[in-house]
Order: sequence, then C-alpha cells, then structure tokens
Amino acid sequence: MTTNTMDKTVKQATNPWEGFNEGRWQHEVNTLDFIKRNYTEYKGDDSFLAEAAPSTEKLWDKLQELFEVQHKKNGVYDMDTNIPATITSHEPGYLIKDEEKIVGLQTDVPLKQAFMPYGGINMANKALESNGYEVDDEMSFIFNKWRKTHNQGVFDAYTDEMRLARKNKIITGLPDAYGRGRIIGDYRRVALYGIDFLMAQKKKDWKNVGSKVMTNDVIQLREEVSEQYRALADMKEMAASYGYDISQPASNAQEAIQWLYFGYLAAIKSQNGAAMSIGRISAFLDIYIQRDLERGVITEDEAQELIDHLIMKLRMVKFARTPEYNQLFSGYPIWATLSLAGMNMDGSSLVTKNDFRILHTLTNMGPSPEPNLTVLYSSKLPEGFRTYAAKVAKESSSIQLENDDLLRQHWGSDDTAIACCVSATVIGKDMQFFGARANLAKAVLYAINGGVDEMTKMQVGPRFRPIEGDSIDFDQFMDSYKDVLDWLAELYVNTLNVIHYMHDKYAYEAPQLALMDTDLKRTFATGIAGISHAADSLMAIKHGNVKVVRDENGLAIDYVPQNEFPTYGNDNDEADEMANWILEYFMTQIKRQHTYRDSTPTLSLLTITSNVVYGKNTGNTPDGRRAGKPLAPGANPSYQDGKFLGEKNGLLASLNSTAKLNYSCAQDGISDTQTINPGALGRTDDEEMQIDNLRQVLDGYFDKGGYHLNVNVFGRELLEEMDKDIDNPKYANFTIRVSGYAVKFRDLTPEQRRDVISRTDHTRM
Amino acid sequence: MTTNTMDKTVKQATNPWEGFNEGRWQHEVNTLDFIKRNYTEYKGDDSFLAEAAPSTEKLWDKLQELFEVQHKKNGVYDMDTNIPATITSHEPGYLIKDEEKIVGLQTDVPLKQAFMPYGGINMANKALESNGYEVDDEMSFIFNKWRKTHNQGVFDAYTDEMRLARKNKIITGLPDAYGRGRIIGDYRRVALYGIDFLMAQKKKDWKNVGSKVMTNDVIQLREEVSEQYRALADMKEMAASYGYDISQPASNAQEAIQWLYFGYLAAIKSQNGAAMSIGRISAFLDIYIQRDLERGVITEDEAQELIDHLIMKLRMVKFARTPEYNQLFSGYPIWATLSLAGMNMDGSSLVTKNDFRILHTLTNMGPSPEPNLTVLYSSKLPEGFRTYAAKVAKESSSIQLENDDLLRQHWGSDDTAIACCVSATVIGKDMQFFGARANLAKAVLYAINGGVDEMTKMQVGPRFRPIEGDSIDFDQFMDSYKDVLDWLAELYVNTLNVIHYMHDKYAYEAPQLALMDTDLKRTFATGIAGISHAADSLMAIKHGNVKVVRDENGLAIDYVPQNEFPTYGNDNDEADEMANWILEYFMTQIKRQHTYRDSTPTLSLLTITSNVVYGKNTGNTPDGRRAGKPLAPGANPSYQDGKFLGEKNGLLASLNSTAKLNYSCAQDGISDTQTINPGALGRTDDEEMQIDNLRQVLDGYFDKGGYHLNVNVFGRELLEEMDKDIDNPKYANFTIRVSGYAVKFRDLTPEQRRDVISRTDHTRM
Repeated sequence: MTTNTMDKTVKQATNPWEGFNEGRWQHEVNTLDFIKRNYTEYKGDDSFLAEAAPSTEKLWDKLQELFEVQHKKNGVYDMDTNIPATITSHEPGYLIKDEEKIVGLQTDVPLKQAFMPYGGINMANKALESNGYEVDDEMSFIFNKWRKTHNQGVFDAYTDEMRLARKNKIITGLPDAYGRGRIIGDYRRVALYGIDFLMAQKKKDWKNVGSKVMTNDVIQLREEVSEQYRALADMKEMAASYGYDISQPASNAQEAIQWLYFGYLAAIKSQNGAAMSIGRISAFLDIYIQRDLERGVITEDEAQELIDHLIMKLRMVKFARTPEYNQLFSGYPIWATLSLAGMNMDGSSLVTKNDFRILHTLTNMGPSPEPNLTVLYSSKLPEGFRTYAAKVAKESSSIQLENDDLLRQHWGSDDTAIACCVSATVIGKDMQFFGARANLAKAVLYAINGGVDEMTKMQVGPRFRPIEGDSIDFDQFMDSYKDVLDWLAELYVNTLNVIHYMHDKYAYEAPQLALMDTDLKRTFATGIAGISHAADSLMAIKHGNVKVVRDENGLAIDYVPQNEFPTYGNDNDEADEMANWILEYFMTQIKRQHTYRDSTPTLSLLTITSNVVYGKNTGNTPDGRRAGKPLAPGANPSYQDGKFLGEKNGLLASLNSTAKLNYSCAQDGISDTQTINPGALGRTDDEEMQIDNLRQVLDGYFDKGGYHLNVNVFGRELLEEMDKDIDNPKYANFTIRVSGYAVKFRDLTPEQRRDVISRTDHTRM
Repeated sequence: MTTNTMDKTVKQATNPWEGFNEGRWQHEVNTLDFIKRNYTEYKGDDSFLAEAAPSTEKLWDKLQELFEVQHKKNGVYDMDTNIPATITSHEPGYLIKDEEKIVGLQTDVPLKQAFMPYGGINMANKALESNGYEVDDEMSFIFNKWRKTHNQGVFDAYTDEMRLARKNKIITGLPDAYGRGRIIGDYRRVALYGIDFLMAQKKKDWKNVGSKVMTNDVIQLREEVSEQYRALADMKEMAASYGYDISQPASNAQEAIQWLYFGYLAAIKSQNGAAMSIGRISAFLDIYIQRDLERGVITEDEAQELIDHLIMKLRMVKFARTPEYNQLFSGYPIWATLSLAGMNMDGSSLVTKNDFRILHTLTNMGPSPEPNLTVLYSSKLPEGFRTYAAKVAKESSSIQLENDDLLRQHWGSDDTAIACCVSATVIGKDMQFFGARANLAKAVLYAINGGVDEMTKMQVGPRFRPIEGDSIDFDQFMDSYKDVLDWLAELYVNTLNVIHYMHDKYAYEAPQLALMDTDLKRTFATGIAGISHAADSLMAIKHGNVKVVRDENGLAIDYVPQNEFPTYGNDNDEADEMANWILEYFMTQIKRQHTYRDSTPTLSLLTITSNVVYGKNTGNTPDGRRAGKPLAPGANPSYQDGKFLGEKNGLLASLNSTAKLNYSCAQDGISDTQTINPGALGRTDDEEMQIDNLRQVLDGYFDKGGYHLNVNVFGRELLEEMDKDIDNPKYANFTIRVSGYAVKFRDLTPEQRRDVISRTDHTRM
C-alpha cells in the first residue's frame, strides 16, 4: 500500500454531485441512502419507451454475426492460452469502437475467453484441450510448480470420505473445480464515489481491522483488505486504458453507466465464478439519466441507447469452461443476474423508468438469456410495471420473478439483489459462500440400503443397519433417513469448509469485495436436490405400501407402490408438509455444524440444470421415478410420467404447493419453473387479457408466499418442432427459462432438451 | 497425491537393516530408538583419527580457490537470476565429480547462489541488484502479479504500530524480509527408512489429520501434509538425477551419509531460512560406519574421508542475501549447526568415534565457521572426549558448547539439537517459529521518555507519562518500565503472529517438515536484546543516583550516574538478579499473549551480530553506555569501556553471573561468548595443561548451570594485527566465535571487527 494516493479526498472541481439531494451518502459509502433520497418513482406504463438506436442495431448485428460463428464453433469464439487474466492483463478491446457508447471487454477481442488458472490449472487446461486449443507448457509449469491453484488446494485437504461422497454424487456440483461466484460487488459505488474515495475508505478500514490481537481471522482480513485496495488501483489503470479517469465520481448518465460497468468488468476480467451477477442497478442509474433528461443534455432515445449498450455488454460475457461444467450448467450461463423493481419498506416502490428500459432491451435486441433479468415482485408494485413485466415474460420467456415481500422481511433491507438464480444478498453488505447441493432423493435410498450406493454398490455412508424384507416400515425408515441426513449434513458442510478456505487462499475475489463493506455478513449457502422425489418417496412409504425389489445381493433396487398416495405439487397439505419436514430437518442439521468464518448457514431448493446429472446418478426411487431419469428441478413438483408421480391438478395447485415451502429454512431460495401453454391464459387472440391473467397469477402466487417463478409461455409442440430442426437460424435466439436462469434452447444438450420437453406445460390453470 | 506410489511398502531385497538390533524403530518412524539400540559408545581418546585422504585434499584445494574468488567478489561467486529454486529445479552439480564420495550441490555450480523469491520477490531482487546482477523482468512480473510472496503478505497485514516499532528498532531483525529458518528436518530418516516408507507414513497421517470437523487448523495441516508428501517425491527425483535411488533404506555408511545429505540438500535447495541446521547426526551415522568397519568393507581412513566430504558440503552452503541482512548477520552465516555428543537420561553418553571424526574436520581441513559445530556438553561426558573438545576449541576457536544437562531436563529428550545458535529443539518432534528480538535497553529509555524514541524523537509507544526532573525515582521508573514491557510484549508477539501466518502461507518449509512428525510441538521463539545494559541501567537508577540530561524539548538524552553501582557480570547477586527479573517479567508478559497455532512461547538472550545494529539505534543508557555503541551480545555482560560498565572481576565471575540466568524463562537459549587470552590458561608452552585448564573451566561452568559458551582462545593483539592487514591470504580461514556462530574474521564488516576487538579478552581467570 502506498500512502500517497490513499490520503487524497474526492476533488470535486466540477461537482459531479450537483443537483442531487444531500444526505449521509456524501460522508460515507452508502449507496442506498443516495438512491432513496434521489430516485424518481415511475407509476406509468411502457408508452414512453424508445426503439433501438442505429448504433444499437449496428452493434447488435455485428454481435449476432459473432454469436453465429461462436455457435458453429461449439460455443467458443476464441480462447487465450497463455495470458493469466487479471484486471489489467489485456489491451482495450471493442466491438465497433466508434459506435459503442459503453466500452470494455473481458479480453482484447469480443467473445474471446480469457485464461483463468487460479481456480485450477487443470480445469483451465481442460477447457483449452476440450475446445481444441493447445495447452501452454510454460503456463502449466508455472501454475503447477510456482503458483498453486484452488482446485489442487481443495484436493490436498479433502478426506477420503469427501472424495467418495463426491464420486458417488450424493453431494454434487461442488465449486471445487470451478469458481464459487455469487459474490456481487456494489458496482454503483464506482460511479457514485469514484475510485479514490473508495480507496481512502478501504485504507481507513484497514487501519481498524482487528484490535491488537492478531488471530488468524484478523490477519486474513487485513491481508484481504490490502488486496482489495490494490484491485481498486487496478480498476483505475484498466479504465485509463479505455481513456477514462474513474478516480472521481461520474458526472453524467453515460459516465455513471460506464463507471459502474468498469467495476463489473474488473470482476469478470479476473474471476470466472459460476455466477457473476451485477446486482441492483436500475433505480441508481435512473437517477443519473433523470438528471441528464431534466438538464436537457440527453433524450429518451439516447437514454435507451445507453441502457441497450450496457445490456449488450452483459450479453457478451463468456468464460472458458470444461465439458463437465457445461453438462452441469448447460447453455453457457454466467448469471449476470440483474435485479429490477422491488419495494421500499415504507410502502413506496423502487420502480423507475429504467426498470422499463432494461426489460425493453428484450424487445429492442430480442430475447436473450443474459443478463438474467429478475423482477423483485410484489402485488403492491405499480400496476403499470406489473402489467409490463407480465407482458415481457409472456413474450420473451426470458425473465424470472422473486418475491420482494419475502426478501424485505427476511433480509431486512430494501437493497437486496439476486446472486445467480434465487439467492438473495444485500448489496455491498453480504457475501456468500456458495455450496451447490446434496441429493436428498439419493439419501432416501442410502437410508434403505444402509449407506450403500444403489448405482455403484459402494459403501459410501456409514455402515448403518439396512432395511430388510419386502416392505418398508415408515417409522423404521424415518429413523434411518434421519441418521443419513445427520451424517450427510456434517460431511457436506465440512466439505464446503475446505472449499471456501482454499478459494479464499488461492482465488480470492478482490475486485468484488473491494466494492463491498469490509465488515460483511457472510452466508454459507447449502442446497437440496431432489426435494420432490424425496417427499413423494416418503409419502409412498407411508401410504403406498411399497414393495421392495432386490438384486442378487439383497440390495434394494426398485420399489413398487401398491396403493395410491398423495404427492407434493397438488396442494395436498400432508404431502406438502412432508417436503417441508425434509427441508426443516436438513436445515437444522446444517445449522449444527461449524461453518467457515462463522458464516450463517442458508439453504436453497435449486438445481439449475444439474437435475439431469443428479437424476442420471440416482436409482429408482420409491415414488415411482425411474433410475437415471432427471430429478424435478429446484422445488418443482415431479413431472415425469409415472403412475403416481407428481403434479396432477394444474398450475394453480402446483403453485400453491410450492408457496407452502418454508422460506425461513430456505433463505438461499426456492426455485420454481413453470411452462404455461398460451391457451391456458385465455383466448390467444386477446393479448391484453392474457397479460392480465398472467399478472393475476403472479399477484396471487407471490401474495400466498411463493418465492420465485420462472415463467415460460409456449406450448410443448413448439419445442418439439425446434428440437427436430435445432440448427435452423430462425431459432437462434429462442430463449426459455430453466431452473434459475434462461438459456437459448439450441444451446442445451439433446438430453436436456428432452428433459425440458418432458416437463408439464400447463394447459389449464 | 497420487495413490500409486503411496501404498508401496519398503522392499528389502538386500535387507539394508541386516546386522542392526531389532526394535520399535522397524515398525514406526523412530530414529532415536534405532540409535539407542545400535550405537557404540566411545570412551577413548583421539589417537585413532585419520588424516585427510588425497581426495579430500584435492577437493578442499579446489574449494579454497573458489572461496578466494568468492571473497574477491564480495562474497558472491555467482547467482541465478531466473530459476526459482525448488528441490528439482537444477541439474546435478559437482566440485570434482570423480573425487566426491558425497555428492549434491544447491545449484548446478559450486557456490552459485540460487534465486529464491518465495520469501519476498523484492528481497530476492535486492540481493541480485546489490551484487551487480540484473533483475529478471519476467520473474519480477510473475512473482508480483501471479505468485505473491511472504514479505508482501506480511506488509499487507502489519499494523501501523508494528511498522513504527520496526522502523524505530525497538523490535528488530524480524524474519519478515528473510526466511525464518531454524526448522530442522530429521534427515536421518531418509537413510534409515528410505523415502517410500516415509511417504507411506505421511499418507497414513494424512488420513488421520482431523476428525470430521474441518476447522481452519485442520484444513491447513491436511494441506501441509500433502505438500510434505510431494516434497518427499521430489527428493527421490532429485537424488535420482545424481544417480541414487533413495526410495529404499541406505545399506552402508556411504549411502547413509549420502541419503541423509540428500534430505538436507532438499531443504537448502528450496528454502533460504536464516538458520538451516542439520541436527544431530553423529551417533546415527557412526552406527553405519561401525557396521561397515566391522564387516571390513571400509577402513578408518575411508570413514574419515566420508565425514570430511560431508562436512565440506556443509561448508559450501550459500544463500543470496541483501545488504541489510548481511549487516544484521555478518560474515554470511547459514547456521548449518551440527550438534555433537550429549548424554542419555540413563547416565551413559552418546559419544561415538564420529563425534571425534567430525571435530577432526577442523584439523583435516582447517578451521571453518560452517558447519556450526556444537558440543552438547556435560561434565559426565567421557574424559577423552571432553579433553578433545577442549583441545579443538582452543586450537580452532570454531566450536560452541551447550549444557546438555539442562537440555535433557527441560526438553525431556535425549535427542535435542541446536537450531541456529542456542535454540534447542527435539529432532523430528519440535518445530520453531523464530522471532528475533525486542530491545529492552531501548525500552528503558521509552519508560523514561513516555514512549518517545530517543533517536528519532517519534512517539512510538503509547503516550505514557514521562519521568520528569533531574533525577529518576526507582519505584516510579519501575512502574513505567513495566508499562512499556507490557505494551512491547503484546505488540511483539502479535507482529510475529503475522509473520508466521504469512510464512506458512507463502513460504512453507515442506521438505524439512516432511522429515518430522505430523503431530508436532511448536515453539514460538521470542528474544531479548540488550539484557546487560537494561539490568545495569536499572542498577544505576537504583543505586547510582543518575542525573538526567535533557535536550531543548525536555527529552532525556543522557544520564550521569553520580555513585558507583553493582553491575551484571561480576558475580554480584543483586545485579545478576536484576537481569533475571527483567527476563522473568518479560517472559511472563509474552506468555499472556495469543500465539500463532497455539505454539509454546520461549525466549532467548541472543543477538548474533545484530548487537551492533541494535546499539547503533539506541541512545545513551543510564548504565553509562554511549549512544550508537554496540550492545553487549546475547547474555554477555557489558564490555564497553566506561566508568562503571560491565565485567571487572575476570572470566570466572563473568561466567558465574551468566550461569545464574534462569533457563526456565529462556528456553530458546542464553548465549555467552568469551575470549580467553592463551596466557590465562597457564603456561603457553604447556599445551596439555592449558587444555586441561580449559576443560575444567567448562566442567565448572556447565555444572553451575551455565547454558552456552562460545570459546575463543587468542589475544586481542592478534586481532588487531589481522585487522590492519585483513586481505592477507594467510588470515583467510581465521575463524572466531561471535554470538552464537563462528565467522571468518575477514568476512566481518570493519565496524563489527572493531566491536570484536573491543570485547574483553580475559587475561586472568
């Protein structure tokens, strides 16, 4: 740390804050205070929106061409092989320099994927090799001999039991071979304060981290703040290479968007976290646009142009990934999740014109999976916005909605945003240790087979007493299931403890954390996969008189329910409460454990597209699900065809079931993905009525306590038609919502396309 | 960790253990058990010793030539600039290949210093630049941008207060800009077990590190054991490049020495710790030599040849160092400390012929500062050996002696060795966090001036109330002194906590620790500089009616005692107890602190040659010592000329005082360096009587509880003669003992030569 730049205070020769309402935000880093004192709520409709500017069209056409090349090259336009990515590792790059109002690329060439070895040199090399690039021997040498990486650290510390559980997929998708992501910097701070002020604040914090006693925790944090400080300096250097001095606050809308984007760019230049979300930027940027509009220095057309250009940049983010990663999270998602709308605790809404402008990019540039547009929904949001959101959801199948009433209540802030899919975080105040998920459907089978894996026949769990005989006694089973969940929770949390220790050690996210408070709340995000199959299996064992089929060694390998039994997803209280029991019991066991950095445990019901991989590795389950078939994603009720399986009572009953899940025990989010056949929304020639119906469905669902909804509006027939002719350019941008994100349909694996097609498309409410 | 090599057990086709007495050592790593069951105590005299072999003379002549070149190039024969040193980074190197019975160099060329950036890239670069080598830009880039180093980590976490205390030299010599060293692998294990067995043991340990709960401590240790495992594999690879397969146990004396040296070589190839001691290898190797002698496969001449060749290798160890480092630790010491002799708890001695052979290298190849030959002394050692040790001490002034009775009593083992100078460690069982020293003479001045530094005039300590007026009230002063010591102990320990956290993180000593038990005792070694001046100052304030001289701002800058007062070093109980009070009080404060990895705090009275630098930065002290003059080294009584200063009653009184110091509070060692004028030992024409007298002095000193003695036998006149004609080749190898190590006189700075000359050379007992 050099002292020179540190002691500078913000020079405001031209006063970039002129015209803003004063407040505490001027004296401390407090973006929310700035927003609340300065934003203009908008209660109107979408009629003010402007079309795409000529520059936007030129840039978008160019980008479409590059995307087409990328698609033909299996998702890889180009890759670096020997420049370890840092904030400042690349020269500036452009799409069409003279047309870009907002500049900045991850590397020096659009869509070129950077080389990021810190998460794991083997992963970085595998990403190269699997895409036909040659591994650079010098890089391999350096990052094996001189500079250790995250992945190697993790495997140095994993126990044999952890490796076994991982290999047998009872715990899957762990961020030990990819970046944990989900850490959102408050990128707005760059625009509001400029880098110099933020550096001065970090230096102040650094002076005050820890009392006199240097415990490891204090030493670690002091070093991290130093790293953050250097990352801020690097951001300035990087911005300067694009011709911008971001040491001082932004003074107009274009600068505000550009400064904010440089903050985000620093993150995506140096970290390939699974989810690289951008946070909640809408009302904040609207303040700058509104000021410029009022000053008469820009028009609405120009405002939309700036937003379109920013969003286009977010559509371009790419990371080098391995085939295993792509199998888990299909379609190249990077979760540039951007959270919109939401309410204030005082009952007003945070909706601005910018929330419209951002959604409008799906019209101006067509549907797109990224950024992952997320509406923080409440039935109390202005009707104009709710109507517009429903309209965009119906037209694009590209957005998701989360319950802002629950967010405010549980997170105690008006400034939450979604990291990744459904995972809430208070911007600048919280960080998250992301931890994938445990397969609780498979855990049912471990309970029956005494810890032996039904697929590999290996003894994975402790040698618990198996359940013997032809039928399963419910009470005996529940004792066994609890034993398995107790074991699994402990093993799972400790596996994550290893991962996050090593991630901090070898792949610390300095640029994101530089734009957050030094004194953070840390959450420890665990997850459950297969909740619906687990719940339905318990219901089957309780009420279905399940007959057990065994292999030659006596291992239970199939289950035949003799009687009907209620299932989760049909608004049946007993079945829905069974799902809640599993959730609450597992969360209780998670909470008992020691967590890294004394972080606060949370839990999600979310699988992303990994439900396919999970299912492939899970045998027949007592609910009737067949071995190898995908699990239902997230918190979705089961949808696989089967005698007794899944949701049977239509969309509203399904939503009612999901809404009953206890968010208190699943504060990392509850994901629900639904496809509505257009016909179910009313006469297809009355668009206004359809939008109105959809809005009412949303109002009802969220008022009942539903947490999240991915909305797809199309029929299964359309998907089947596309599936047969998948490379037809006319389907290039067709986007659908899967569990927690959106994806271009053609980017899914054939297997995942089949899974999506096999899901229920509700033809009735 | 690959599993393949891990599960191998030791193959003993030819049975390398044939002829050894059986024991527990065959079933577990237990070198001491092997030694006790197999060594042959030797009670005779030195008459069996053999002269240097022709090969030894050829090699030594060659090495002398290289040393001369090195001396003319200011201590640097050659330096690597762009090969970061690892165990396997260099091709094999030789002095004269066909003559070497024991092979292996740090780099590929004799005396060439390796490039070791992990401790700090800035230090490594400074070592290059200050010696006229060009810094390699690529290395600087890699180790600044991609691979952080220890030194940068430390400064990222240091508080402002730590920097200030360091800058003002109240705490000095901290291993934050050099490797901490002092960690001794049990290199004997390589010879006794071979690498494969050691790897299998480490894999077993790795499986059992930690229960299920992954705290940071457990994760850290699991990763470290993985690193150790890889270091063992690297040792095999390195040995193989020299044509040796060390996967299996050594089968004869030559192999035993060679295997052991390869273990040590792995350490010095990859780590430039301040002290790279080799441990206690004498009896162990004697077992192999004795077996070969009895089998008739070698002669005593050949045995001596092997030992001479090993010792010659230890004389060649060199590290690239900065001018600041050389100023602190003058004469290029590396502390290849080799501990000899010692007793068993059952009353027998561990003396073997090998202890004679090793001391005899000082005759066969002349005196030498390295290896730092250290006799673990007891009056109960066989007389033949005590006589020979006294003889060698007198003739070479190259050895030191430590009290083996105290070692056994306090460390509970027959297998302690000295790391560095006076710091005991149980081989393979203990490791040490070395932590330099606090200047308690300067602390006296801080107590008087209310935390203001007398040299820089900066407020360094807390703004304590200063002592005002012309005289100093003893009770008031003592309250203030305790306040300063309380503050200093806390700050000092926490500074060390930062250093060792970062050293483990960025410069972990995997090869040494691979040859130690996984479940270690860790000591936390603090130190005091200036004990004699502090004690004498307290005596002056108490009894000397000290008048205070102040500068224009009222700061106390000089002290004039009006009366005589007793001083430490003259067998005066009150003065000696004052030294003990300081020691005990400061150690008590050290013990109150949190220490890194819950290590056990220890303390040394040792300054090495840093007494000169400490003194340069310390103002006038109330005992009459003049500002800027060197402090007395280690636990030595003061010797500076001055009215009331230091030892006045001869050698025995001085030794009696030192022997009173409480080793319980200074288990990191108490260093005493004495120069005896040959005349004081009796008639100079009766060598036998002189040796006998010296032996009796040693017996008496150690029986009284003295801990350590550096013995020099020469007169001041000789030093003064050499100082005037320092580059005369006839003085090239003239070696003297300074505080804790030996040094070639000509390698000292002129300032340090003056300090040595000014010390008392006792002309009477």
